[in-house]
Amino acid sequence: MKKNGLFIVFEGPEGSGKSTQAKLLYKYLRNKNYDVVLTREPGGTKVAEMIREILLHKDIKIFPLTELLLYESARAQHIQEIIKPSLLKGKIVISDRFSDASLVYQGYARGLGMKFVKKINDIVVKDTYPDITFILDVTPEEGLARIKNRTKKKFDRLENENIEFHKKIRRGYLKLAKNKENFYLISTEGRIPQKVHKEIIKVLVKKFSL
Amino acid sequence: MKKNGLFIVFEGPEGSGKSTQAKLLYKYLRNKNYDVVLTREPGGTKVAEMIREILLHKDIKIFPLTELLLYESARAQHIQEIIKPSLLKGKIVISDRFSDASLVYQGYARGLGMKFVKKINDIVVKDTYPDITFILDVTPEEGLARIKNRTKKKFDRLENENIEFHKKIRRGYLKLAKNKENFYLISTEGRIPQKVHKEIIKVLVKKFSL
Repeated sequence: MKKNGLFIVFEGPEGSGKSTQAKLLYKYLRNKNYDVVLTREPGGTKVAEMIREILLHKDIKIFPLTELLLYESARAQHIQEIIKPSLLKGKIVISDRFSDASLVYQGYARGLGMKFVKKINDIVVKDTYPDITFILDVTPEEGLARIKNRTKKKFDRLENENIEFHKKIRRGYLKLAKNKENFYLISTEGRIPQKVHKEIIKVLVKKFSL
Repeated sequence: MKKNGLFIVFEGPEGSGKSTQAKLLYKYLRNKNYDVVLTREPGGTKVAEMIREILLHKDIKIFPLTELLLYESARAQHIQEIIKPSLLKGKIVISDRFSDASLVYQGYARGLGMKFVKKINDIVVKDTYPDITFILDVTPEEGLARIKNRTKKKFDRLENENIEFHKKIRRGYLKLAKNKENFYLISTEGRIPQKVHKEIIKVLVKKFSL
């Protein structure tokens, strides 16, 4: 596929500020008159939102391989319905999570193995890997505290996992950040969103002259 | 896995009599005092039933790869939650459809390729392939007429496909039946269920001394 757009992904543990940063970037680029699409995983399409409901359901037992394949099916739909067509039209696509989340959550933390998950990711993502991925880093303590303060809602299935699981997720992302090109690790610990946002813009301006 | 049970699958086009034969066999084996589990794909578990709802939804566009991965995730859950534990306990498991349905529907009819789907099937099914598979054969004309008569309900997404699609499905199953061991092709065209049932019992008695 010859694509003309730009594919930007935000990754990181729960409460690391992904959604906030994705939104701030979306507004920034819109103000600069870019054609931008803001989306998220799992979700972004009607099918994917239905899958998301299963994944975040609190009262059912889901095996790791089932979980992985559900994320991958939502991803397949997301790519073909939204991401790929938008990139082909020259748009900038910003996604709150993408395939690396599966590497870390199902591959590393749930124990399916990062190599195994990469194999499935490659089948599903093919040539639609991100041009740049920001991995936002935060300690589980601060990340989970942010979520609690922010929403007052009851925790969903993922947020309900114990602190050890969240530590594992963080380690997985830090491991990933070391080994990959086009990855920018940015700490959000103790920092206000606007400061993190400026750092992100700086990287994008330097790398893509946005 | 060393399994002690017996895994029997019914496959075939819409209206070929799979569910009817699965139920007749279930009753027969129960009467013989076997410990039998009757299940179906996609479904059989709470997660899988939720996935089934997405798959049979009439008003959403689902890409072939999304469809395949949804079936595979339901399958992964089905195997780990029901099929494998039951076989390990020495039970007889009867499933209305299994992994070969993906070979035929998504691989052959939707064009993803049977080789490609087999690769994914192998990842998900591993060592839990059926001991025997009955492929029930019927023309699309008779198969679809049976469904119409039986239910009076509105057709779901799959049943709504045009006649060409159903012909393709039949060709796919016939192709499969040629190439595989442990496959028994049985025509249900113009035959009453009890007659087909007797033929199935004969095969099982001969092969497994049931």
